[in-house]
Formats: sequence, C-alpha cells, structure tokens
Amino acid sequence: MRHYMDDTLLMLADKWAEFALHEDLGAGDLTGGTLLDPQKRALAELKVKRDGVLAGVQWLEVIFHKLDPDAEVTYEAVDGDRLRQGAIAARVSASQPALVAGERSALNLIQRLSGVATLTGRFVDLVEGTRAMIFDTRKTTPGLRAFEKYAVSCGGGANHRMGLYDEMMIKENHLRLSGLSLGDAIRRLREKHPGKRLTAEAESIEQAQAAMQAGADIVMLDDFSLDDIRAVVKLRGTKDEDVKKCQLEISGGVTLDTVKPYAETGVERISIGALTHSAPALDLSLKVVT
Amino acid sequence: MRHYMDDTLLMLADKWAEFALHEDLGAGDLTGGTLLDPQKRALAELKVKRDGVLAGVQWLEVIFHKLDPDAEVTYEAVDGDRLRQGAIAARVSASQPALVAGERSALNLIQRLSGVATLTGRFVDLVEGTRAMIFDTRKTTPGLRAFEKYAVSCGGGANHRMGLYDEMMIKENHLRLSGLSLGDAIRRLREKHPGKRLTAEAESIEQAQAAMQAGADIVMLDDFSLDDIRAVVKLRGTKDEDVKKCQLEISGGVTLDTVKPYAETGVERISIGALTHSAPALDLSLKVVT
Amino acid sequence: MRHYMDDTLLMLADKWAEFALHEDLGAGDLTGGTLLDPQKRALAELKVKRDGVLAGVQWLEVIFHKLDPDAEVTYEAVDGDRLRQGAIAARVSASQPALVAGERSALNLIQRLSGVATLTGRFVDLVEGTRAMIFDTRKTTPGLRAFEKYAVSCGGGANHRMGLYDEMMIKENHLRLSGLSLGDAIRRLREKHPGKRLTAEAESIEQAQAAMQAGADIVMLDDFSLDDIRAVVKLRGTKDEDVKKCQLEISGGVTLDTVKPYAETGVERISIGALTHSAPALDLSLKVVT
Amino acid sequence: MRHYMDDTLLMLADKWAEFALHEDLGAGDLTGGTLLDPQKRALAELKVKRDGVLAGVQWLEVIFHKLDPDAEVTYEAVDGDRLRQGAIAARVSASQPALVAGERSALNLIQRLSGVATLTGRFVDLVEGTRAMIFDTRKTTPGLRAFEKYAVSCGGGANHRMGLYDEMMIKENHLRLSGLSLGDAIRRLREKHPGKRLTAEAESIEQAQAAMQAGADIVMLDDFSLDDIRAVVKLRGTKDEDVKKCQLEISGGVTLDTVKPYAETGVERISIGALTHSAPALDLSLKVVT
Amino acid sequence: MRHYMDDTLLMLADKWAEFALHEDLGAGDLTGGTLLDPQKRALAELKVKRDGVLAGVQWLEVIFHKLDPDAEVTYEAVDGDRLRQGAIAARVSASQPALVAGERSALNLIQRLSGVATLTGRFVDLVEGTRAMIFDTRKTTPGLRAFEKYAVSCGGGANHRMGLYDEMMIKENHLRLSGLSLGDAIRRLREKHPGKRLTAEAESIEQAQAAMQAGADIVMLDDFSLDDIRAVVKLRGTKDEDVKKCQLEISGGVTLDTVKPYAETGVERISIGALTHSAPALDLSLKVVT
Amino acid sequence: MRHYMDDTLLMLADKWAEFALHEDLGAGDLTGGTLLDPQKRALAELKVKRDGVLAGVQWLEVIFHKLDPDAEVTYEAVDGDRLRQGAIAARVSASQPALVAGERSALNLIQRLSGVATLTGRFVDLVEGTRAMIFDTRKTTPGLRAFEKYAVSCGGGANHRMGLYDEMMIKENHLRLSGLSLGDAIRRLREKHPGKRLTAEAESIEQAQAAMQAGADIVMLDDFSLDDIRAVVKLRGTKDEDVKKCQLEISGGVTLDTVKPYAETGVERISIGALTHSAPALDLSLKVVT
Repeated sequence: MRHYMDDTLLMLADKWAEFALHEDLGAGDLTGGTLLDPQKRALAELKVKRDGVLAGVQWLEVIFHKLDPDAEVTYEAVDGDRLRQGAIAARVSASQPALVAGERSALNLIQRLSGVATLTGRFVDLVEGTRAMIFDTRKTTPGLRAFEKYAVSCGGGANHRMGLYDEMMIKENHLRLSGLSLGDAIRRLREKHPGKRLTAEAESIEQAQAAMQAGADIVMLDDFSLDDIRAVVKLRGTKDEDVKKCQLEISGGVTLDTVKPYAETGVERISIGALTHSAPALDLSLKVVT
Repeated sequence: MRHYMDDTLLMLADKWAEFALHEDLGAGDLTGGTLLDPQKRALAELKVKRDGVLAGVQWLEVIFHKLDPDAEVTYEAVDGDRLRQGAIAARVSASQPALVAGERSALNLIQRLSGVATLTGRFVDLVEGTRAMIFDTRKTTPGLRAFEKYAVSCGGGANHRMGLYDEMMIKENHLRLSGLSLGDAIRRLREKHPGKRLTAEAESIEQAQAAMQAGADIVMLDDFSLDDIRAVVKLRGTKDEDVKKCQLEISGGVTLDTVKPYAETGVERISIGALTHSAPALDLSLKVVT
Repeated sequence: MRHYMDDTLLMLADKWAEFALHEDLGAGDLTGGTLLDPQKRALAELKVKRDGVLAGVQWLEVIFHKLDPDAEVTYEAVDGDRLRQGAIAARVSASQPALVAGERSALNLIQRLSGVATLTGRFVDLVEGTRAMIFDTRKTTPGLRAFEKYAVSCGGGANHRMGLYDEMMIKENHLRLSGLSLGDAIRRLREKHPGKRLTAEAESIEQAQAAMQAGADIVMLDDFSLDDIRAVVKLRGTKDEDVKKCQLEISGGVTLDTVKPYAETGVERISIGALTHSAPALDLSLKVVT
Repeated sequence: MRHYMDDTLLMLADKWAEFALHEDLGAGDLTGGTLLDPQKRALAELKVKRDGVLAGVQWLEVIFHKLDPDAEVTYEAVDGDRLRQGAIAARVSASQPALVAGERSALNLIQRLSGVATLTGRFVDLVEGTRAMIFDTRKTTPGLRAFEKYAVSCGGGANHRMGLYDEMMIKENHLRLSGLSLGDAIRRLREKHPGKRLTAEAESIEQAQAAMQAGADIVMLDDFSLDDIRAVVKLRGTKDEDVKKCQLEISGGVTLDTVKPYAETGVERISIGALTHSAPALDLSLKVVT
Repeated sequence: MRHYMDDTLLMLADKWAEFALHEDLGAGDLTGGTLLDPQKRALAELKVKRDGVLAGVQWLEVIFHKLDPDAEVTYEAVDGDRLRQGAIAARVSASQPALVAGERSALNLIQRLSGVATLTGRFVDLVEGTRAMIFDTRKTTPGLRAFEKYAVSCGGGANHRMGLYDEMMIKENHLRLSGLSLGDAIRRLREKHPGKRLTAEAESIEQAQAAMQAGADIVMLDDFSLDDIRAVVKLRGTKDEDVKKCQLEISGGVTLDTVKPYAETGVERISIGALTHSAPALDLSLKVVT
Repeated sequence: MRHYMDDTLLMLADKWAEFALHEDLGAGDLTGGTLLDPQKRALAELKVKRDGVLAGVQWLEVIFHKLDPDAEVTYEAVDGDRLRQGAIAARVSASQPALVAGERSALNLIQRLSGVATLTGRFVDLVEGTRAMIFDTRKTTPGLRAFEKYAVSCGGGANHRMGLYDEMMIKENHLRLSGLSLGDAIRRLREKHPGKRLTAEAESIEQAQAAMQAGADIVMLDDFSLDDIRAVVKLRGTKDEDVKKCQLEISGGVTLDTVKPYAETGVERISIGALTHSAPALDLSLKVVT
C-alpha cells in the first residue's frame, strides 16, 4: 500500500527540518562551504543498502528546499514500498554545497523511519493469517511521535492512540491513586468523555474478566503467559454479545521470535513498544552521481 | 565517572520537554485528568528493568516541573552509573494528575539515552586495554543530537564532531564535486579555517597514505578489511614525526562481535553509527509507590 | 460543578499570555509606566457586573505572574460558579504598574470565556429534564479553541470533537468529492481508524435512516424541521438494538427561543455554534481598592 | 471603501494560520485524509448567508497556501464590501483533502471579523449625519487585536489606540494609586512623552471640565447620562480656543438602540467595546461546487 | 535620574538572553564545563573601566538566572548613573561554570547599551542651556531597538518614534511615489490617523515653510546649514499662533564637535543616528573576586 | 575576495528579518500604508555615501521578500567589495508600500555589517606585509554574532572561535576558580576534548613561557607592552620545534594608531574587540529613483 505524508505531517516536517539543519550546520559547513561552488549543481541518489520498507522519503524535499529553493527531488519509490538492497528510492538535484550540507540531516530521519517500518513489516508478516494486528505504543522519540506512528503504518502496522488526549486507558496507577473500583472508574470516564474508546489494563485473568464485563472496549493483557491469554480468549467466547465485542490486546515482551504463537491465540491486537523505541535504522546512502 | 547535563543541555531539555508534553497531552489527559485529584500527591520510583548504564535522569525534573512546579525529584543514581536490574534510580513526588500525565514523556527520553549509553558501554568494555576509543557519529535523531552525544559520553565513549561546523572532514563527494586534489583541498581548508581539526576519509591504502602525508589530523579508513587496517598502521610507523601524529579512525560495519580485533590493530579511534541510530532502549519503569 | 484548568490548558495559557501582553504593551505602558511606582503594591478586585457563569479565572495568575513574579491572586469563586451581579470573584495584589498594565489583558480572556459559559448555562437550563445535552462545535476563535471548549464545560455543556483528528464526521462534501456511497465511506473509515467515533451528517430523513443503518455512532440532523426530527426519532425506535444505540444530534439554527421544543423531541445532542462564535462577553471589572 | 490587509497584518496572519491549523488538525484529518485523494482538486465558494460587511477575506489564501502551495483563490468581493445574503465573496481551488481540512479554520476567522465589521457598520449607519465617529476599544480577543481593529475599519469605524504603548490615557486608577492631581499627572506625561495623544477619563461634569482645562486632547465621559453629556458639550463651547479643540468621547453602555441620541449631543467620538467583545459572527459557508 | 527596565523590556530581555546564550554556548562551554565544579560558587564584580553612563545593568540577572536559577545579583548602581573609571556597578554570585559561561553574554549587551548612554550623555551635556533636546532615530540594531532607545533615555536623551506604527513622517519618497502635494498628504494622514503626531521632512527653506503652514507638528530640517536653520527659526517667529507651535528638528550630520551651535539656533529637537548606530561600547569587565 | 552569505547565514537572516520588521512595523506603517498604492511598484538604489567595504548586501532580498514576495533585487557589487562614495551597490524593485516600509530595516543591518567590514579592512591594510592577521573576538552584538563575524571576513579579517563551544581558552578565572595549575588544566582539557584548539591567556612573560611549554596551541598576550611582546617572540625562537609552532596572539587595546608596530613584532594574531563592538556604521542610503 502506498503511503504519503499528509498536510499535517508535512507542516511538522518543515519545523523539524529547521531543528535538524540547525544542529548539524551550526555556524556553517566548514568543509563544503569552503570547497564547493554554490553556482554549480550536483545530482545524488538515495540508495537502499539493506532490504527494507521505505518510510519518510518526502523528507528529502523538505530538507533540501530549506537549503536550496531550487532543489528538485524525483521519486522512484514511495513510502510503504518494500525495497531490495541496491534499489534507488529517489534522486536529488541541488547546488553542490546544499547537497553536501543536507546529506546527513536528510538520511537521519529517513533511516530511522524506514527502520521502524521495516521492523513493523517483519512483525506484520509473521502474524499474517491470524486475527491479530500489530500496533505501536506511545513509546516514541520525544518530538517525533507523529513521524514514527506514520512509519508504523507504512510497515503495515496499526496506530494505537496518539496520546493521552484521544483515547482513554485505565492502568493500575489510576485505580490505586484514585481509590476507585474499575467499574466506577469506567462509569466516570464514560460520562465525562462519551464516544472515546476505553482500554482497561489487566494484570490477571480475574481483572481481565472484570474489565470485559465492566464494558471496556479493549482489555489489554499485560505480560500474560500464552496459557493465560488463551484462557481469557476462551472466557470471552462464553459471554453475551456486548462482552464478545470487547477486543483483547497483548502487551509486553513480544518479540520476533515469540509473536507467532501469541497471534494465534485469537486476540485482535498486539502492541509492541520496540517498533518505535528499539528499531535499528535502515541503512541508506545518498551518493553524488554527477 | 559521574556525568551531569550542563547548563546548555538543560536549556535545550526545557524546550524539548515542551514538545514532548505537547505531543502526548494534546488537548489534555482524558483518563488521569478525569479520575485523579490535583490536590493530592503521589510518589513514584524510576526503576531499572535490565542491567544498563543510566543517562538523562535529570530529564525527570525538567518534565515534572513543567506539569507541577512543586514536583520534587530525588536521585539515587547519576548519569554514567552502571545499574543492575531492579535498582531504583530516582524518586518523583508530584500531584497525582501530573505524575501520571508525565510518566511516558519522562520515560521516553531516559530510556533512549540510557539505551545509547548502555550500548556504548558494551563497546567500551570490549576495547579495554587497546589504544582504541569508541566514538559516535553524526547519525543521530533529528533534534536530539546533543542529548545522544551526551549519552555516548555517559557510556564511556568519546564524541566525534558535533556537526559540520566544528571540524572539517573531506569525503569523496567533496573531491569529486570540486575537482580538487586531496592536497589542494587540505591546503584550502587549512587556510580558511586554521586550528580546526581535519579528517580525511580514505577508501584505499593508497588514499590513506596520501592523506597522512598531506597532513590530515585524522585519516578515516572507510570499510577497510582488518588486513588493510594493519597495513596502514604499519605504514604510519615508517613515516617521520609529523605523519606519525596522524590518528587513524575505523568507520563502517563494526559490531559488538567484531570490535575487538579491530581495536587491536593499533588504531586510535573507532566510530560507530549504531551507538545512536540503532541502540535499543533500556527498559525502565516509573511506578507509583504511594 | 467546580472546574479547574488542567496542566495542559495552563501551559497553553502561559503561551497565550505572552501574545496578549505583547499586543497590549508593545513598547511599554506610556501612562502607568510614567505615573506609577514599581516599588509600591496595589490590590484590585475582580467584580462581576452582570449575573453569569465564571470561566477562566485562573488566567489572572497567568497574566500577573508574567508582569510581576511576586503577584498574588486569591480566589473567591471557581470556574463553573454562577455568580450574581456585584460578586467578587478574585483579588489580585501586584506592583502598581503591573496591576494597571495587566488589567485589560486579564479581563479580555475571562470576559470572553465567562460569556461563553454564561450563554451555555442558559441553554443547559432550558433543556433540563429532557434527554438532550448541549454541545459546542469547531466554530471557535482561532487559537483559543481549548479555552472556549473548556468554558462550554464550565457552563454545563459537553464538548464535541476537539478537531479533525479525534473523531470522524462524514459530510456531504466528503461523499461528493470521493464519489463513495455513505456505506463505503463508513467501512473505509472504520477499517482505517477503528475505535474512533463516527458521525454522519444527514440532510433528509432518508439520509438519516441510511446513516443509522450503515452503523454511524451519531447521526447529525442538519437544519431539520421539528417534525422531521420527530420522524427520525420515531424511526429509530423501530430498529433493532444496534441501530437504536445510534445517537441523534441536531445542528443548525437552534436559539434560546427555540431550543426547548427541539430538546423535547428525544434527541441526545444539540450542537450550537453560537456558544463559541457569538456569545457576548460577560461584563467584569478589575478595580483597584487600595 | 475597499480595504486590504497590509504587509504587517499578512505576516501576522501567517503565524496565526499555523495556530489555527494546528489546533484543528492535530495529528491529521481522520475523515478527509482517509476518504479523499490528494491528487484530485476541488473548487469551493465562500458564500454569505446573512447580509453583512465582509472582513478578512484574504485569510482564505493564508490558510489554503499552508495546506496546499498550489491552492488558488479568486475574489469576487473585497473587505469593506456590504454583501447581500447569497452573494459569493470568493472561490478557492485546492487539492481535495486540503480544501476540506482547511474549511473550518478558514471560516472561523472570516466569520468573526465580518461579524465585527457588520456590527460596526450598523452603528456607523446610525450616527450618519452627526459629528460622532464610532471607535473600537482595547476589549479585543487576546492575540487577535490587530485583526479585530482592522475589521472595525472595514465596517467604517475608527481605531482607538492600539495598546498601552501608542497613546496615553489617565484613568481613575492612575490618580488614586499615584496620589497625583490630574494636572500634575498630565504635566508629567507630556514631559515624558511629548507628541503622544492624551485622553483623560472623567466621571463627573466637574472632572470633565478640569480635564479640558488641564489640556487633555480628549476627555472620555465614562457612563454619563445624555443630559450630562450635553452639559459638557455646552460647557466646552464657552471656553477659549485651546480648550475648544479638546475632543469629547462617550464610553460605556452605548447600544444600537441608544447610539443615535448620544451621537446627536455633539461629541466627536463614541467608543463601543461590544464591537469586538460581543459581535455575533457573520454566517458564511464554504461549499464545494465541483 | 534613575532608570529601570520596565516589565515589557524585561520580558524582551528574557527572550534575547536565550539567543545570546545559544549563540555563545552552542553545544556547551568546552573550557569551563570541563575545569569547573558546578557545586561550587563564585563571586564576580562588574567593574567600569572608562567613565560613562550605565545602561542595562539588570541584564545581569536575566542572563545568570538562565544559567543558574540560584544566581544572585546585587546592584551598586542603577541605569542612568554616571560612573567613574574603577567603580563597581554590581556583584554576581553564581555557580562557577555558570559565572564563567555567562560572562561574555552578560557584558556584550551592557557594554553596548552603556556605550549608547554614554555617547548620548555627552551630547546632552553639550546642549545644556539651550531649548534643544537630543533625540534618537530608527537607525538601531535589528532586534535591539527597544533596548537601545531605553539606553538613550538613560543617557538623558529623548526617544523619537519607536517605529513606523506610532507616529507619521512624510519624506520625499512618499510625495514622489504618491504624486500627492504635501498639503494633500497631510490631510489624508490626519483623516486616517487623527491624534498621531506628524513630522514632515524638508530639504529647503521653502519646503520647511510650506510644511509649517500645512500643519505638521514637527518639521525636520534635513541636512540644513546653520544659516538656513536660523532662517527657518526666524520665519517661524513671524507666523500666527498655530504655526508657532510647530517644532523644528535638525537631522543629519550633527557631531559632538558641531552640536553646540546647532542647539543654539533655537530648534527644539536634534536627532542623531550615531547615538545608536555608531556609539563605541563602554569598557566593562566582570572579574571573579572569590 | 568575493563573499556570499551561505545557506546557514541566510536561514538565520530569515529569522532575524522577522524581528527587524516586527519591531519597526508594529501594527503597521501609518504613513506609507496610507499614502501609497500596493498595486504600484517602485525602484530604489542602495547607494554608498562614504568609502567602505560592503557586507551583508543579500539582506536586501531577505527583507523585501518578506514584505513583497514579488520584490526583485539586482546586485552591482558583492560583499567584500571596496566601494567608493557614490557607488550603487544594488537596486530593489518592489511594491511602493513594501519599498518604503522595509527601507530602514534593510539599511540598519547592512550599514552595521559594512561598518564592521570597513573598520576591519582598515586594520588589515595597516598590517599588510607583516605575519600578523587581524582577528575578531566574542565581543559581538547579542544575536548577531554570525553576521558580524561574517562581516569581519568580508573586511579581510579572520574569525576567532565562534563561541565557547568550538575552541578552548584558559583564562585567569579558570585557574583561580579550579585551583588547577596551567599544566594540569591543559592536560584535562586535552583529554576531554582532543582535537579542539587550545588558547592560554598570559598576563606576564613568565606565564607566556609556561603556556608555550605546557603545549598551548596559541598563547594570548593580554595587554602586553611592545617590549614584552618582542621578548616573548624572541623567547619562542629559542625553543624546540613543538614550542615554535605555538602561535602568539596580542589582545587588548590595539587601535588603528598603534596596530602597525604591534604587527611588526612577529606575532601571528592580533584580536580586536572594537571590530565588532565599536565600529561606526557605514553610511548608506536607499533612495527611490522611479
């Protein structure tokens, strides 16, 4: 599936490009600023050096337009494409000093996002054929959440809530601090924020059962064993229609090695913090060709 | 060695905390904002869930002071400390809604920085007893470079140039685009920026030799085999005093599995992009205790 | 019900206070800066000059702390309180030039927000005893939406979606431009954004019926006559359980004079743009008392 | 009279458009971003749904260029035009998702400003044939003062001082806190800020007389009865040339119902806070036509 | 006369301090950050190294509070004081790294402002006993105008308009481009902006006469010879009362050597761009004493 | 030598232009905004009114593009050119109100930078034929350092360190506060920041000798007499090769009158704060020609 950064993400990218260039250029590029001629142009290729899923390629335009309003980018691939080692994803034409000055800032974000997309893609492939979808979490890089969640979708994953503001999630801390029962907490939240999806975190089969019956939209099974997860899925099957609609989410410690059996338990959602907090960057290069 | 964020980094952290909170809180915390009482306080512990090196712990104060000017943080450990699984690194006292609202934003940066420090520490341990030091690169997260380079130093690594502005590095692209010989490029840079350190990238033994003799302060051996590296080190030993002072740096493809023999070749510097672009986050939690 | 600005709103208020003071003070207060002594303090009262609902009173602190870090505010009332003409809502003590320089900036926001809360309160009173709740819209002042939606809640109203990002709403434009049927549009949105509430706008009884059956969470009846609304409510009563859960919302042209019969039709929601785009300010003053 | 936002206001609009879009789009438009194709364009019309005075129409360009650099706006009317219900004020062509995403942000400001212009226009019509001009006040929306004062001028009104920095006004608070007599206060201000216009607020005929004789450029009659105003006007007629030049301004409680007799008293200025703090929005729509 | 930065200027100083520290500290203070202990405090003295007028001394607090919230500043002198070489103007206590890191940023602004105040003071002394006051111009450093105009007042000078927005000035360019006569231009401006002071620039005795009669508040004699200035002053004396009130301003090429005879011509105003664009900095030091 | 602002400086200029225009335009240009027609264009010439070195001429484009996206600038000279009184450096075509509104903001920076370049050029001419180069310092205008250092290079001078972050300098304060000997301080700095240039300040011949032998790259002779400088140069000549490479820098009190004999002592560097803190502006004008 082809993905494009939307208007909102592009506006954010514009702001972030300023930070990126500012921290890399500081008072100016000592080397390229001295050796290269601003009147001459150069062409470079964005090359993929390991198999992976592309994400964030439009960042090229954002960076290079800041450095050279006449820079031009042509795309050979779009976000979401699965590329082979050696593939050319895009070409950039810009003034020589701009091309060299922007290279690292351009690669840093695309490599990170493509790394996220690639790792997501591997998980997605592993759960194919099951009911489970792969979700991200809020464990993202400060300031880059919108980009990283976009990269997860490029890799075929689904996005969990964007932040504390768009969905509700009751965790142990909330109950402990407020002294409320789960049922009372849910009631209070439903009344205050009707129409917002509500997830309840459960740390035992009993809590999961209580949460389903109290009307959570999603019950998140936190660090459950495979057997316990299967027990909850089975339990849900015995309930009436309303409770059956409750989705189950697995969270905590799922890896590439273990994801398959988890997905086969019958849950709808598997959320994986590592997608965004521990994905290795995808190796890319931006080499001058003329 | 104990590390502290300096004034400069704290001022940057202050700005970044706004971004982090803004993207996580958006229009407000639906759950905690509804269930918790702003007049009540809570205490939480920052707990280390895997062995690792701590980095960025002062971020706790930065985040929680934004949400609650009366928040208090007490530290049990400082940046650079090697902590065991289960250790408590710090404690935070704040209003209940502030504590819950800031938890994820607080963890996201400390986990990332501690992940960088931990990976760096593993490389540093492996090269102990050799001449080689572990260096970072400019392959950092857009906007977070200063934090990530600080985390590398917490892990015992050394910092390469901060950006294009504080040291010079001649790469293949510069020579190709400018049409200059390496010697001419060095001369021009020395004249324009006296006193700035100059690195020349070499892709063959011949280029390395040429760069040493042309007076580079550092010659970076890009993707060299172990044998070729040893050949360059040996070659350097045959030169006169000026050339002998030239440092050698290995770059490209060094991993935890391969770093040791590289370090034993006699080079002074090993730079590793993965320290910052592919370090998995260190697992930490911030649990309410009362 | 007592209302307080939460952490998120206070952080936004801090930024907005800078804009407000900047535009009013420009290069400085010619009058107060010349006549008054910064070493002397003064005390002022925030007085309510017409009956109304208070909203935004904490803005006092935000403004005056910018001008005088030693300013102190004591509250006699909180947001959501229904106050009588002549009531004192708060007292401010600050340096004389600060008190005078901040007066207008302080009043401008509180008057506007209290105006919104007051108008909302009047609508809320009128629908008491019916199933209908009063909702705001996205027709807010650019930059002030979070404040104005907060004011609506102070007045006893409920908040519609915050923006385009937290709920889905299908309008005529979407169908016309995409060429999709309502059913297809709903399916595509459900798949892409599971768990987000979906409203479908209807312009006829037939469209309302189609939207209910296609599974919208809310059907918004746009500019319907009272008879047509009653027909839709009745129609809904004849449907199966799933459809019965669909909420009905009236939008368009509801005024203080007409809200009552609309509310008595049996709909759950009445959304009123005028709450935020046309509420007259509540008259308040901030007079120096010593 | 035709009005255009000048360079200064357009630069401010550019900044404000970012706030507006940010608060409405948040993490992106769930609905339009999913249903609409960024490669397709659409055309919409800005239609006036109640008779009124247009103000701020160039905001269309500012908003839509942020979302789509290729957006095009053509104008059928300019600010200051008195438009009939049903008139088309402008047309916008943009990519489909951009058009739908920007609709509300675009309307929100134009509706507010046109509301201010329309209310101003009604007052201006009522005082035609008298000496009195209609003035705005500093009772504006925080952050939007420059826009709202511009809207007042579109409606045919005049602008009072922009803020505390461009004219002087002595109020009761200043005298009370400083302990200065009105005469001393005026002298001190004239010396410190020669050439800045000075208004003195009066709360009785005696104070008005004193202020005229002390050399105020304008005497503001605060909440005076019609009889008292006429008495002051008459009194002024008996004075020497210098005092006769002093302008009289009525402030406080003037409404559409009462403005006419006030204007006929012979004063030069009537300032009305409601122009900016309580003007109902003008109803406009932006409907897609193809 | 004692001067203090007002609320407005302090808020601006806060923003400017961030720029100043950012550009000087960049990624951190290599020297002080390495050699000094953040747990230890130091005390430094702001010492005046040439006779001069102090301006901007509160900038010390602004800078050092950014670097160390516990920094303390005690003042021995205030802005506007004429200090002798060797005088101590203030003392700063802060952490050692903060004190050293902020030294240059602190001095740079105070030296510049005190330089402006000192030069202004020399002009003011030279015109003592005449009717003429010394005024600044808009020829200020981009971004620092408010500070520099404040420094002029510390030196005993008067402030011309702050910018294009608070007073009107008709120059040759306006007439040439608009094709308006001076009289028509004045009429149009008076109508649009009643109460704003209006200056007309004249380049000949005839133009000066025309401007006086057309009702300018101030006539600026641009690069007039002493004889021509005297002629205009004399001419004014022959006019009726209204014209006699018109002030005369000399502008262009007035230096410390020539200001006296110019002031003795009987004009009210002498405006001098050099006060802000060419004042040499006052030599100050901030030396650690313990 | 021809100089151009690089990408980095142009991005900074863009931000600074906003500050400059904001402070000059405030709420708008009262005069030009009223008298001139935005549909008409005008052409103006940037004319040099005193012999000098041009610096910052591209600022014209930055300013005028903000005010009028269709503004066009053509250059007759580039930065670094030595221009004669009367020369035309550039021409600007823009809408009439934009041209007049931007005139002063445009001139203010170019005049300042050209003033710095001109003063630098005079020093550079005076030291021609000696080994000494003219350097700037960190005594720059807050916020404008990058511009002012660029202007120094336009005048033929060399740039000292940009800030505390790119080179190390040990001053008296560091030793006093840390209690370290010069040798220990140098060792610690070399270890922490290998490859960064290190300057040691000396206040006596003995300290200079110690610093040379301790391995400083540069020894800065602070306020030395000519005789003492000659003694240090001579002393250096007697040392071994390593010490001979140490550069000597004179700092403090060098003026146009005294620079020549200082330069003839044989030192490599003369740093002069006055280049940036006390350079008089170069007189330029921007007159409308049609």
